Amino acid sequence: MKIGFAGLGVMGGPMARHLLKAGHEVAGYNRSPEKAKAWAEANGGRAAATVGEAADGVELFILCVGNDDDVRQVVGEALAVLKAGAVVVDHTTTSAKVAREMAELCGAKGVAFVDAPVSGGQAGAENGQLSVMAGGEAEALETARPALEAYSKAIQHMGPAGSGQLTKMVNQIAIAGVVQGLAEAVHFAKVAGLDTDKAYDAVSKGAAQSWQMDNRWKTAAKGEFEFGFAVDWMRKDLGLVLDEARANGAVLSLTALVDQFYSEVQGMGGNRWDTSSLKARLKP
Amino acid sequence: MKIGFAGLGVMGGPMARHLLKAGHEVAGYNRSPEKAKAWAEANGGRAAATVGEAADGVELFILCVGNDDDVRQVVGEALAVLKAGAVVVDHTTTSAKVAREMAELCGAKGVAFVDAPVSGGQAGAENGQLSVMAGGEAEALETARPALEAYSKAIQHMGPAGSGQLTKMVNQIAIAGVVQGLAEAVHFAKVAGLDTDKAYDAVSKGAAQSWQMDNRWKTAAKGEFEFGFAVDWMRKDLGLVLDEARANGAVLSLTALVDQFYSEVQGMGGNRWDTSSLKARLKP
Repeated sequence: MKIGFAGLGVMGGPMARHLLKAGHEVAGYNRSPEKAKAWAEANGGRAAATVGEAADGVELFILCVGNDDDVRQVVGEALAVLKAGAVVVDHTTTSAKVAREMAELCGAKGVAFVDAPVSGGQAGAENGQLSVMAGGEAEALETARPALEAYSKAIQHMGPAGSGQLTKMVNQIAIAGVVQGLAEAVHFAKVAGLDTDKAYDAVSKGAAQSWQMDNRWKTAAKGEFEFGFAVDWMRKDLGLVLDEARANGAVLSLTALVDQFYSEVQGMGGNRWDTSSLKARLKP
Repeated sequence: MKIGFAGLGVMGGPMARHLLKAGHEVAGYNRSPEKAKAWAEANGGRAAATVGEAADGVELFILCVGNDDDVRQVVGEALAVLKAGAVVVDHTTTSAKVAREMAELCGAKGVAFVDAPVSGGQAGAENGQLSVMAGGEAEALETARPALEAYSKAIQHMGPAGSGQLTKMVNQIAIAGVVQGLAEAVHFAKVAGLDTDKAYDAVSKGAAQSWQMDNRWKTAAKGEFEFGFAVDWMRKDLGLVLDEARANGAVLSLTALVDQFYSEVQGMGGNRWDTSSLKARLKP
């Protein structure tokens, strides 16, 4: 399949590489052109100098960029050259509002838009094991699915435009609770003088179990946070969640509190620390 | 082994039954004597009319009662007849303070005391799949271990007297975060108009995964809470946690907030609802 890919960062770079490995013809664009060149040289793809060049004549245009405004700009530029019948898949985590806007804008030109944020992080992108939560027309997702499978372990169609983004928000809300509970649990265990390894063994097989406990308890107990999903990204996502909740009336007491705690972690210089660094606020 | 068992409720009843099935000689005591009689008739054990009768001549005396004061009373009565060398195992969830008190009181008579709260709930007690978190002398726990294995899948020695209770607190803190995050996630999904089954499929395989999500998402989405670990018990446990934190200086912002939310659930008549009923505060 002829594919254009915009945004070759820590997520998009490996995703686009998997597309090449699966035999697709991929033109990669990045705002910093040297990144596109490096990606093309390392993986055997083609570097596009502009969004228009990446989108020219493709059946599928994928983007994975920073935020709502980036998406508006890139999709706008792509639409100038995309043909009717093309499909745009946006892996950026954005507001549901921008997803609906883009679906309308694309629809007016006969182009389908699928909002398709992912979970699984950098490791998932590199191993081709992402989970994709997709909103938009089911038919458009089916057109894109064979390509997306190059880097996904699961692709779920959630409903109309914006549903993918709303589902990603559900994911981040659930994580916010788990990680703050985990931070307080590890903190309490240390204050109480418990052996944190033994405490993990004792509590991790029952009703307190979580992916975060299995993967972040020991690093949090040691104060290791220089890896994983960065606090800056989580705060961006929680900002989208809280904006959406302000609009739809959802009551997110814990999510709002955890968002403030992340602000405190940022103030400690933890912008690039893993989400489990909520523990860093609590000494020891 | 000759064993006395005090407290034949929804947890203690099945535990004592497993001891009988494993071939131990068990005298069962309950504050409501008809419960002890019913337990003895159903399972072939012996009903004791007093704590002293249950504890008379035993090597191991186990209790699983309501709260700190119940433990003080039952252990006091048992100590009047227990011989030096006997081991007391307390499965009640109590303060660490009472565990240390009981260890000292028992120690003065040459009796060992092990604080050994459990996780796994009523289902775990019935299936003999409890996790035991034990504090006290390792040697005493080893004496009791073969008996405790009749109803446990894991028995972890955590450290000196009180460590078992402190570990149970760690467990409940972690759960508090998970269930509130889950409640807000399910609530948001419904407000946002998502199909909650599809949302579960999309978010439950990654970093948001938890035992609570796997076992309580669907019931919470349907508003089913009449089962599981009751809010009244959880509030009792969180009260112990917050008292301990007041004493040891741990900072438990989320735990304190969730405790208040449970108060609200109690006000809705949810005293016997499962811990996942934090969702019931949030409509739809």
